[in-house]
Amino acid sequence: MLELRLVQGSLLKKVLDAIKELVKDANFDCSSTGFSLQAMDSSHVALVSLLLRSEGFEHYRCDRNMSMGMNLDNMSKMFKCAGNDDIITIKADDGSDTVTFMFESPTQDKISDFEMKLMDIDSEHLGIPEADFHAIVRMPSAEFARICRDLASIGDTVIISVTKEGVKFSTRGDIGTANIVLRQNTTVDKPEESTIIEMHEPVSLTFALRYMNSFTKATPLSGQVTISLSSDMPVVVEYKIAEMGHLRFYLAPKIEEDEEETKPET
Amino acid sequence: MLELRLVQGSLLKKVLDAIKELVKDANFDCSSTGFSLQAMDSSHVALVSLLLRSEGFEHYRCDRNMSMGMNLDNMSKMFKCAGNDDIITIKADDGSDTVTFMFESPTQDKISDFEMKLMDIDSEHLGIPEADFHAIVRMPSAEFARICRDLASIGDTVIISVTKEGVKFSTRGDIGTANIVLRQNTTVDKPEESTIIEMHEPVSLTFALRYMNSFTKATPLSGQVTISLSSDMPVVVEYKIAEMGHLRFYLAPKIEEDEEETKPET
Amino acid sequence: MLELRLVQGSLLKKVLDAIKELVKDANFDCSSTGFSLQAMDSSHVALVSLLLRSEGFEHYRCDRNMSMGMNLDNMSKMFKCAGNDDIITIKADDGSDTVTFMFESPTQDKISDFEMKLMDIDSEHLGIPEADFHAIVRMPSAEFARICRDLASIGDTVIISVTKEGVKFSTRGDIGTANIVLRQNTTVDKPEESTIIEMHEPVSLTFALRYMNSFTKATPLSGQVTISLSSDMPVVVEYKIAEMGHLRFYLAPKIEEDEEETKPET
Repeated sequence: MLELRLVQGSLLKKVLDAIKELVKDANFDCSSTGFSLQAMDSSHVALVSLLLRSEGFEHYRCDRNMSMGMNLDNMSKMFKCAGNDDIITIKADDGSDTVTFMFESPTQDKISDFEMKLMDIDSEHLGIPEADFHAIVRMPSAEFARICRDLASIGDTVIISVTKEGVKFSTRGDIGTANIVLRQNTTVDKPEESTIIEMHEPVSLTFALRYMNSFTKATPLSGQVTISLSSDMPVVVEYKIAEMGHLRFYLAPKIEEDEEETKPET
Repeated sequence: MLELRLVQGSLLKKVLDAIKELVKDANFDCSSTGFSLQAMDSSHVALVSLLLRSEGFEHYRCDRNMSMGMNLDNMSKMFKCAGNDDIITIKADDGSDTVTFMFESPTQDKISDFEMKLMDIDSEHLGIPEADFHAIVRMPSAEFARICRDLASIGDTVIISVTKEGVKFSTRGDIGTANIVLRQNTTVDKPEESTIIEMHEPVSLTFALRYMNSFTKATPLSGQVTISLSSDMPVVVEYKIAEMGHLRFYLAPKIEEDEEETKPET
Repeated sequence: MLELRLVQGSLLKKVLDAIKELVKDANFDCSSTGFSLQAMDSSHVALVSLLLRSEGFEHYRCDRNMSMGMNLDNMSKMFKCAGNDDIITIKADDGSDTVTFMFESPTQDKISDFEMKLMDIDSEHLGIPEADFHAIVRMPSAEFARICRDLASIGDTVIISVTKEGVKFSTRGDIGTANIVLRQNTTVDKPEESTIIEMHEPVSLTFALRYMNSFTKATPLSGQVTISLSSDMPVVVEYKIAEMGHLRFYLAPKIEEDEEETKPET
């Protein structure tokens, strides 16, 4: 039997809003250590990885490992019915083909339960090796979202270049070119507004803006985003989920020389 | 001659916004006692009944009974031109085929008058018998609107069930089922947030969510809504209009067994 | 060489938002006295005239007169990437076929530069004679925008009539007629809310609401708008740009008798 009770239920609403554009159907994996999801996006280009550790739940019971296949659009419709302050409980019996979501208002005057059918979804769990990154940029998540949105109005791809002084986001399109430079900045009053660059080697990689813009749907989850870059490795865009875990997106860089010919993302 | 002056003109704007989705053309009836409207919705399933008592107007002159046929979309276009703080006056000469709406800003610096053609509309006034209800639920109007909207994302109909402990709103659709339970609650600080259940007999009735969602367009008129239910009788969904009257919607329940076959509302 | 630095960069964003609906491609003219634009709208009915005086810029360098042809939609895409508090610098080398826009955040932590291709645009500069107006109305720009929007829901044209007592905006359409009267009002606390009528002769002129509604896109530029009217002359609708200049729109009146036949604007 599975019963997970999360006081800050709005976290689950935000997680769904963050990933449902990329992933349509996915297995949620539940074990004694936590509630997790790993899925490729529907065009098999980006990888989404979610972890919510069991310690973050008010109540966490998972008698044996379960993998529950869910349609994220349907799940999102149900979670939209939860209030932002609601306590959310996820319940499933062993071997059941349904899952129940229970939403309790803080005053307990309104209690909703939604039952959803589960799906069988084939998926293989990819091992993601721990990597050493050439550069790690931590910056305000809203600023990253703004930059990806702005650049997408000019071009299709973004070149992210990191030097000791700062990080540069560049694009080029029919109407012209754009370069946005952020400087390392650790002296601000609020830690959430700082930009911190940890660089071992300079790096410059090209990515499809379309996916970057999908990743930024996770902005409400965290005030900061961490972008980890290595040559010829997928970038990792990570949003921490307060005290509980993280939502990570992986995207392979484009080979710059072939950019004009291939353009698989358009 | 007719001349009705309403200081809180925004009430009339809200009334129009509440009913213009259901009713396209309707007769407004004016007598010495008040300004009223009774109309079936365009698919002849729901009934709308409005009453604004003469005492609620700052100035109310109605020399003889008049019935003025108006197109509510056109009327709404004109009322949208009134400011939210404007004083609204409705004027018509006896036998005239036009009506004039005058909007005065609180400072009297801006005065607008709109003249609209009247229409001939056939309508029979239905007598609505006073009924004894099995159960009457009074609850926050915004909560009722939220529940109807949420359930409509899952299914097409709502089953409203009342017991002494609370009221349950249920639906079922392709993606699963939903149950929302509200408990009687009279101890809140603000009377507008209370949920009060007056029950003589348990009752459980099924309604088309499409109409319920139209009714909730009246939410801005009142902080509370009253839902009056009896077996095999139309439900009455009532919004009080401060000190002046009410806007009531009537809707016949669906016969549950036939639900699958008939579905007249889809 | 050209280098114009404007601390209040949001002014340029607002100017673009105000004119890009009317004008698609236009020459920006730069001389030692200022940065200006004059262009007919794409249907050659209305004239737009912008002036930003050199004194209003923090830094203004223009070695010799330049005329830079720009596509306003593309320019607007780039300016949307500027923050509202950003300092904006416009740079171009003599004879270059590109222009560079630089946006600096107030803290200097984010610096963006956008390069846009220039276009060759034929244009003749029209001399606009200084005119004596029969009546000049100065009024809150938001009120003017509201009136134009409201009347457009009833009819296609507006008759603006000025008398000593006030200014009347009238229209007529299929659903009825509308008259909105504003009285002279100089006694309000805030000068931005005053309505001041300077009248030498009564005047009554008819204009296409479609263009008036385009002009009101300039509302964010200024709290007041000035409407200058003379019989058989184009109306001038002017928005002052704080300390720097103005944005003016010119529109010829319609000949009222022919209104029904011609209706070139529908």
